[in-house]
Amino acid sequence: MSVAQKVRTAIVGASGYSGEELVRLLLDHPHAELTAVTSRQYAGQTLAAVFPRFAGNPVADSLQFIEPNVKALTKAAEVVFLALPHGVAAEFAEPLLAAGAKIIDLSADFRLNDAGVYKEFYGNPHPAPKLLAQSVYGMPELHRDAIRDANLIASPGCYPTSILLPTVPLLRAGLIKSTGIIADSLSGVSGAGRNVSADFLYTECNESARPYGIPKHRHLSEIEQELSLVADAHVTVQFSPHLIPINRGILTTLYLAPTQHFETEAEETALAEKITDCLATAYADEPFVRLLPADQLPDTKNVAHTNYLDLAYRLDRRTGRLIMTSALDNLVKGASGQAVQSLNLICGFDETVGLT
Amino acid sequence: MSVAQKVRTAIVGASGYSGEELVRLLLDHPHAELTAVTSRQYAGQTLAAVFPRFAGNPVADSLQFIEPNVKALTKAAEVVFLALPHGVAAEFAEPLLAAGAKIIDLSADFRLNDAGVYKEFYGNPHPAPKLLAQSVYGMPELHRDAIRDANLIASPGCYPTSILLPTVPLLRAGLIKSTGIIADSLSGVSGAGRNVSADFLYTECNESARPYGIPKHRHLSEIEQELSLVADAHVTVQFSPHLIPINRGILTTLYLAPTQHFETEAEETALAEKITDCLATAYADEPFVRLLPADQLPDTKNVAHTNYLDLAYRLDRRTGRLIMTSALDNLVKGASGQAVQSLNLICGFDETVGLT
Amino acid sequence: MSVAQKVRTAIVGASGYSGEELVRLLLDHPHAELTAVTSRQYAGQTLAAVFPRFAGNPVADSLQFIEPNVKALTKAAEVVFLALPHGVAAEFAEPLLAAGAKIIDLSADFRLNDAGVYKEFYGNPHPAPKLLAQSVYGMPELHRDAIRDANLIASPGCYPTSILLPTVPLLRAGLIKSTGIIADSLSGVSGAGRNVSADFLYTECNESARPYGIPKHRHLSEIEQELSLVADAHVTVQFSPHLIPINRGILTTLYLAPTQHFETEAEETALAEKITDCLATAYADEPFVRLLPADQLPDTKNVAHTNYLDLAYRLDRRTGRLIMTSALDNLVKGASGQAVQSLNLICGFDETVGLT
Amino acid sequence: MSVAQKVRTAIVGASGYSGEELVRLLLDHPHAELTAVTSRQYAGQTLAAVFPRFAGNPVADSLQFIEPNVKALTKAAEVVFLALPHGVAAEFAEPLLAAGAKIIDLSADFRLNDAGVYKEFYGNPHPAPKLLAQSVYGMPELHRDAIRDANLIASPGCYPTSILLPTVPLLRAGLIKSTGIIADSLSGVSGAGRNVSADFLYTECNESARPYGIPKHRHLSEIEQELSLVADAHVTVQFSPHLIPINRGILTTLYLAPTQHFETEAEETALAEKITDCLATAYADEPFVRLLPADQLPDTKNVAHTNYLDLAYRLDRRTGRLIMTSALDNLVKGASGQAVQSLNLICGFDETVGLT
Repeated sequence: MSVAQKVRTAIVGASGYSGEELVRLLLDHPHAELTAVTSRQYAGQTLAAVFPRFAGNPVADSLQFIEPNVKALTKAAEVVFLALPHGVAAEFAEPLLAAGAKIIDLSADFRLNDAGVYKEFYGNPHPAPKLLAQSVYGMPELHRDAIRDANLIASPGCYPTSILLPTVPLLRAGLIKSTGIIADSLSGVSGAGRNVSADFLYTECNESARPYGIPKHRHLSEIEQELSLVADAHVTVQFSPHLIPINRGILTTLYLAPTQHFETEAEETALAEKITDCLATAYADEPFVRLLPADQLPDTKNVAHTNYLDLAYRLDRRTGRLIMTSALDNLVKGASGQAVQSLNLICGFDETVGLT
Repeated sequence: MSVAQKVRTAIVGASGYSGEELVRLLLDHPHAELTAVTSRQYAGQTLAAVFPRFAGNPVADSLQFIEPNVKALTKAAEVVFLALPHGVAAEFAEPLLAAGAKIIDLSADFRLNDAGVYKEFYGNPHPAPKLLAQSVYGMPELHRDAIRDANLIASPGCYPTSILLPTVPLLRAGLIKSTGIIADSLSGVSGAGRNVSADFLYTECNESARPYGIPKHRHLSEIEQELSLVADAHVTVQFSPHLIPINRGILTTLYLAPTQHFETEAEETALAEKITDCLATAYADEPFVRLLPADQLPDTKNVAHTNYLDLAYRLDRRTGRLIMTSALDNLVKGASGQAVQSLNLICGFDETVGLT
Repeated sequence: MSVAQKVRTAIVGASGYSGEELVRLLLDHPHAELTAVTSRQYAGQTLAAVFPRFAGNPVADSLQFIEPNVKALTKAAEVVFLALPHGVAAEFAEPLLAAGAKIIDLSADFRLNDAGVYKEFYGNPHPAPKLLAQSVYGMPELHRDAIRDANLIASPGCYPTSILLPTVPLLRAGLIKSTGIIADSLSGVSGAGRNVSADFLYTECNESARPYGIPKHRHLSEIEQELSLVADAHVTVQFSPHLIPINRGILTTLYLAPTQHFETEAEETALAEKITDCLATAYADEPFVRLLPADQLPDTKNVAHTNYLDLAYRLDRRTGRLIMTSALDNLVKGASGQAVQSLNLICGFDETVGLT
Repeated sequence: MSVAQKVRTAIVGASGYSGEELVRLLLDHPHAELTAVTSRQYAGQTLAAVFPRFAGNPVADSLQFIEPNVKALTKAAEVVFLALPHGVAAEFAEPLLAAGAKIIDLSADFRLNDAGVYKEFYGNPHPAPKLLAQSVYGMPELHRDAIRDANLIASPGCYPTSILLPTVPLLRAGLIKSTGIIADSLSGVSGAGRNVSADFLYTECNESARPYGIPKHRHLSEIEQELSLVADAHVTVQFSPHLIPINRGILTTLYLAPTQHFETEAEETALAEKITDCLATAYADEPFVRLLPADQLPDTKNVAHTNYLDLAYRLDRRTGRLIMTSALDNLVKGASGQAVQSLNLICGFDETVGLT
């Protein structure tokens, strides 16, 4: 596609939090046009009526939600984003692909290469196993070239993004072991989606911190898949998500074992240099990963409403461990912003367009 | 002391958050009388003027803060609580003990048996090393009998309480290894004390989640001391505290290695039974530790404003690990409530008096 | 009833936030016993299972929710609290009264003397208009003697309590006009009840402040009724509620017109003296109303989890107005705590029992 | 200035919240360049080091804070923003103006036409009374033409913006009386600035709602000045600010008296039409004022991080009053965004550049 002409995009399931964030990004995207949004609940209403924050934007003021319909979508758009619950996305992906649309799916439906793993973690058979072979895991820092040529992109989950970006370069470089990896994550409540359940009422989440989904959260499947690919070994991860009272943000703390011992200060310094070099090299040209200065630690408020992942590490000579921490906005780098990176890649735009 | 007569108590440094919570507990305590509170900043003002929430209570309406003064304190009270910053408590402890008062210290000054460890973690020589021999670590679940007879009680830190109570029974029973222990903790902002620093402004903490003090937080020293005593070995712990936007509460997630392998479902069930038995036995008669039913996980909101620690565990057959989670109110079980348990013990009261 | 024997109480609809707070108060009440709680949703589960914060309390650990049933309730309890949605309470009140129970109703069903006003504000005919004549508006500061003898007590709404207690003494004393009264109120989200609606999700309430229900909120009906009784004139009030991101608390700002002009400093001082005298006299013996010192203003955090209403005023010579502000906990003084005051009154207990 | 060439801008006092927001806007402004930022505290550090959220932006990564210095500032910039505390801005304004810079001042120093009113409300004599004659109140919706030609712009306060934009068109049209105006406002904590005071600690603001500064807040002076200009009469306003636990946002509720009676439904409908017409006409071409649809009310979350003011009204036939409510982001439309509107105007840019 030529940059001169705007790419026409549609969102199926635009009324959730990821969908809403995607609307925001596409309304502001200089090379993209939002031409269709679907929602069974809001069909017939404009974007501005449903999301008053967008009022004043001419597209938001006029574009109405429609019932999801493959024909209308492929007529309206070249690239279709699916922001649907797990299991539902596959229904739309098949006919849309057949009709020639490119798909960027924000659900988990196409993130796994192995339908068996899908069944293990999601509890039911994969709805469209044939498509798994052609889908690309949409994390540009890992699969940029494959994304460029893909027709079906499985945009990564928020937790996996916060875990993979810190660990992959070190694992690839052999600086950390592929065993014993522990990820302890804190998520803002928007991570639960616009899920009208008592658990997510204000009064139940405010002044509350709680673990959930331990020890086998669904996101483990894609985390382990990607780490296993890098390590060329079967990687098993310990992952504990927690819900905390913020709107947006994921803060992940990783407990890792360096392959190298470090008992003296000199050994620690030498190892730290290697780690810094490895991360700095890996992310030197990555526009959305920030390796923090040595005196800083990540804070979700510094990445809120941005597509950045912030990253820091500490070595602990007392325990021999490497502690890494990362922060991102679960709705941006953890969902819709990363999906727009993929849009930019498949359209041949600069990857950062509409994201800074 | 006889229950018929109320024990007279004083608080040195009553204007911080722990001090304020202690005021609340002592104002409501049926067998204790609050007879003196000190604060350089507020000397001359009543408790009710400084803490409007206590207005209406006759003692709060009339009792004025005084400048700290050993003579006045020992005249006023049999038991003196110190709610002072680290390093300052020792100054008061010595003369107060000499004058015959019993001391319950909420600072870290007397929690360590070894002055060398104090210097390593707190950065300066211990101000009163001779007193370390007579001080008792004030965690009733671990040292109840010693507390009863102590004149100097070092009330435990909030993080250590959240870490020790879940792990000690299992370590003592040999069900978990003493190596490789990881504690990942989330703390409400009151844990920072009434510390007027930009880091703790509302706007800096709200919508923020951030690690701090990694990898060598001061509380590690008392955590490792107590675990080492139980394990009869030198225990080193990985501990990562995080600040999250709640007023009160600590949520700790522990990563532990069972001594026993469990690969099959049957082995897991057998191990789970042992762990449940061990914890249920250890805490059957403990009034303030709640082992949650198997389908529940801790949530800080369930322990806020109470002296309870809530506790749950999960076994992960995929990784071979035991995950434990605990929740407590950092100002109550993590500070002032636990100190009142000690008060009750040294006075021969029922341990739960004033705490339910 | 004799204090020696505990009064047996039941709660119909104990699973909402007011019900939960009432459970807390009754579990701790020294002269009351909680013998039955109903909930269609939770029938068969214990209080502790549904509300983990109460675990450890022997009654909470054993008392199971039952289906609502008049026979069982009157067998179990002498006093029955109704914590039901508006319109449903009347169904239970009639048969329970007929069976000899005393009723303390936390809904709006029996707060109005006039079934026509009920229809105007609640939109449907009153379900049991005959009972209106015998019900007493359960605000002890206004109707203490009538409450003592009542069989059916209509416990007041949270907003009305925050508006009536500041204004009634001044209106009764003729110090303010009965016209032009404006009440601007802020409420915590628990005021919406455990209402599983998208509007009350954490992500929708956090970082949000919004008016709702203006200009004719249902609570106006009882506010105007009680002010009209005091003024002996038809009083019309402007009332604007707002939702803000706190769990508990109502903060009300009242704009009032003194009957007396005050243009000079001397006139202001003289009027201020009268107002202070009037309020101080009215509330001298009231255990739950605190007139703040002249240099303080109410703050919801000072009344949270208490049965207090805090009160302050300012005169504005520039505009000739009197500004009053009040704060209370909507679940305690605004609901369940006030209901327990009524319980104490009808049982002949000290009115503060179980509330301090 | 030509659009082809970027206007060079500087910020004096860039380390507060308004300054930080201004940094954000200027870093992203397509026709402006940020060439100098001053801060005594942070001199020598880069913007990115002090505000980690800006890391990755090339200017933020390299531009260092300098000590405030008139020579350096006028060399670096054509337009200088002052984001300083009240009373300090005047010190810089005089020499900067003399050196030929244009000034956009975010403090209150130049908002009042009358030095006497300044003294009444701010407590000290005006530091540069001669400059008051040439300063322009920087609210484009009121003074657009004057701003275009001004060298000294006094950017309005956050509360005044939330009060003036709803009322001015109606007052100008004679639809509301200039007497009896009441404004009840709620502010997020960033409104207090990066003010390191115990009052603004997280633990003191969370779960708190409280009035402050009643009945004579400083912002009244500029509110009354601007309304008096419009009404051509001396207008006195009742204004009550409150602090609530959100980071950003002001929600204002206004109580107004229509000049026209409306007792019947028909009269109400007729008046509503006039009001809607008046507001719709006034704001039809204003890019940053949104008159909400009749079924919506303002919510701070819909304007957070935007330069919009949202506006709605309700007529109350029972009381004869007009209730208006508005919402804005105190740091954007209430401070830095509005200042950038002025920048755009004095530079001849489209007024919305850098703000959408």
